[in-house]
Amino acid sequence: MTVALDELLPRADGPESRLTEAMRYAALGPGKRLRPFFALEAARLFDIEERPVLRAACALECVHAYSLVHDDLPCMDDDDLRRGRPTVHRAYDEATAVLAGDALQTAAFDILLHEDTHDDPAIRCLLAARLSEASGARGMAGGQMIDLLGVRDDLGGVARMQRLKTGALFAYAFEIPVIIADAEPAHRLALMNFSNDIGLAYQIVDDLLDAEGSAEEMGKAAGGKDAALGKTNFVTLLGLEEARHRVTHLADQARGHLDMFGDDAEILRASVDFVLKRRS
Amino acid sequence: MTVALDELLPRADGPESRLTEAMRYAALGPGKRLRPFFALEAARLFDIEERPVLRAACALECVHAYSLVHDDLPCMDDDDLRRGRPTVHRAYDEATAVLAGDALQTAAFDILLHEDTHDDPAIRCLLAARLSEASGARGMAGGQMIDLLGVRDDLGGVARMQRLKTGALFAYAFEIPVIIADAEPAHRLALMNFSNDIGLAYQIVDDLLDAEGSAEEMGKAAGGKDAALGKTNFVTLLGLEEARHRVTHLADQARGHLDMFGDDAEILRASVDFVLKRRS
Repeated sequence: MTVALDELLPRADGPESRLTEAMRYAALGPGKRLRPFFALEAARLFDIEERPVLRAACALECVHAYSLVHDDLPCMDDDDLRRGRPTVHRAYDEATAVLAGDALQTAAFDILLHEDTHDDPAIRCLLAARLSEASGARGMAGGQMIDLLGVRDDLGGVARMQRLKTGALFAYAFEIPVIIADAEPAHRLALMNFSNDIGLAYQIVDDLLDAEGSAEEMGKAAGGKDAALGKTNFVTLLGLEEARHRVTHLADQARGHLDMFGDDAEILRASVDFVLKRRS
Repeated sequence: MTVALDELLPRADGPESRLTEAMRYAALGPGKRLRPFFALEAARLFDIEERPVLRAACALECVHAYSLVHDDLPCMDDDDLRRGRPTVHRAYDEATAVLAGDALQTAAFDILLHEDTHDDPAIRCLLAARLSEASGARGMAGGQMIDLLGVRDDLGGVARMQRLKTGALFAYAFEIPVIIADAEPAHRLALMNFSNDIGLAYQIVDDLLDAEGSAEEMGKAAGGKDAALGKTNFVTLLGLEEARHRVTHLADQARGHLDMFGDDAEILRASVDFVLKRRS
C-alpha cells in the first residue's frame, strides 16, 4: 500500500520539489492506513482484480492525508505533532502545508481518473464522483466546518458531525469494491451498514481515548481535551460507561452485517476488535 | 456564467452552511471570469453544445477561485482585499477560508464528473483528468510553490513559473472545447499556441500594472510590489519598454494563431486587446 502510494504520488525536479516532498511527508509517514485496509479487505469478498482497488485506496488515503495536513494548521486545530512527528507546517512551513494539502487532494483525482485505474471510464467517473461527494462541503469538509463551529449540543448533532467528518470517507472505502464489482444491492447495503457501525464506534473510541488519555497522562479529571475546550462529544454526552457499552453493541452489530459473506469475511470480522481495541 | 455557477455550487441547511456561503462569496463575487470566457468563446469555433462547456467552465472557475482564496491567506500573500472586497479569511476567518478553498476544489470535480456534464463518461474523465493535471503539483500548485520560494533568477525561471502557476489553467480553458469537440490536431495546436501567447502576455501585463500602479498610486519609484519584495518578474528583468514591446509582439502572434478559424474567431481575436489593455 505504501509502496503503491509512493509510486503514484507526483515527483518534481524543479524548485517545486519542496511541494512534492511535503506531500510525500504527509501521505507516506506512519499511519494506520485503516481506510485502504478496509477497501482492500472488502474487495476480497468479490471476484475483482486488486489493482483498481489499490489505486482507488491510494486516492482515498491522499484525501485523508490532505484533510489531516489542513486540520493540523494553526488556524484549525493547531497541532505540532502527528503520530510522533512534526506536522507538515512544522516540518516545512504553513504556506507549504496549505499547498501540499491542496495538491494531495488534486493527486487523489489524478490517480482515480488515470486510465490505469480501470479500463471502463464509467467506473473511473463513478469512483471519482463518489470521492468528491464524500469529501466536499456535504461530506468531510462540511463535517470539519461543523466541528470548528462547535455546534453540536446533543447526541444527534455529534452523530451528524461524525457521519460527515469521518463517516463519509469510511463509507467510501467500502464503496470502492462495491463500485468496481458492481455488487448486488444486498451486499452493498451490508457493507454500508458495516461501515456506519464501525465508523461510529471508531469515533466513540476516539472520544474515549481523548477522555481516558487526558485523565491518565495529564493527571486531569476525566473529560479530556474536548471537554477542556468546552466541546461536546460522545463521551461528554453519554458518560464513559454508556459510551463503552455502545462500542460493544456497535461492534456486535457490525460483525452481524457480515454474516451473508460467510468465511470470506473472516479478516474483516476480526478487524472489528483490532480497530476498536486500539490505544491511539 | 455566474447564474450557472450559482446553481452548481453546493448548498447546505445545517451549520455547515457557513462553509457553502464562504464558497459562494469566493466564487460568485466580482471578477473578470476570463477563463470561462475563453472556454465559451473557443467553443464557438466548433459545432458543439454549450451545456457541457458551460459546466466545465464553471468547474475551472471553481479551481481558480480556490487558488485565490488560499493565495490570499496570511501564510501566503496575506492580502486583505480582493477586487475591492475583504478576502475570504477577512470576511469569515482563516479556518473557514482554508475549508472553503478545499471544498471549491472538490466542487470542481463534482461538477465535471456529474453525468449532466456529458453523456460520455470517457469525455467526463478526460475533462476531469486534465483539470487535475493542470492544477496539481505539476501545474498551478507547483507554480505557486515556486512563486513563494522566489526561485526565479532569470527570464527562463520566471517564464516557467508563469507557465505552471497561471498558464496551465489558461490552457485548460481551451482544452475544454478541444476535448468535447474531439478537435483535429491542427485546431488543437492553434488554440494551445494562442493560449500560451495570451497567458504569457497576460502575466507581463500583470507585472506592468504592478510596476506602473505602484509608481503612480503609491508615489514609489517604478518597480512595484514585486520589486519592493525583492521578487524578480518580467518587468524587473526586461525593463518597462522591452516588457511592453513583448506584449505587443505576443498579441500579434496570438491573433495570428487564429487565422485558420477565419471569421468564426472574431470575438476571440478582439478579446486579445480587451484582455491586454485592462487596467486592473
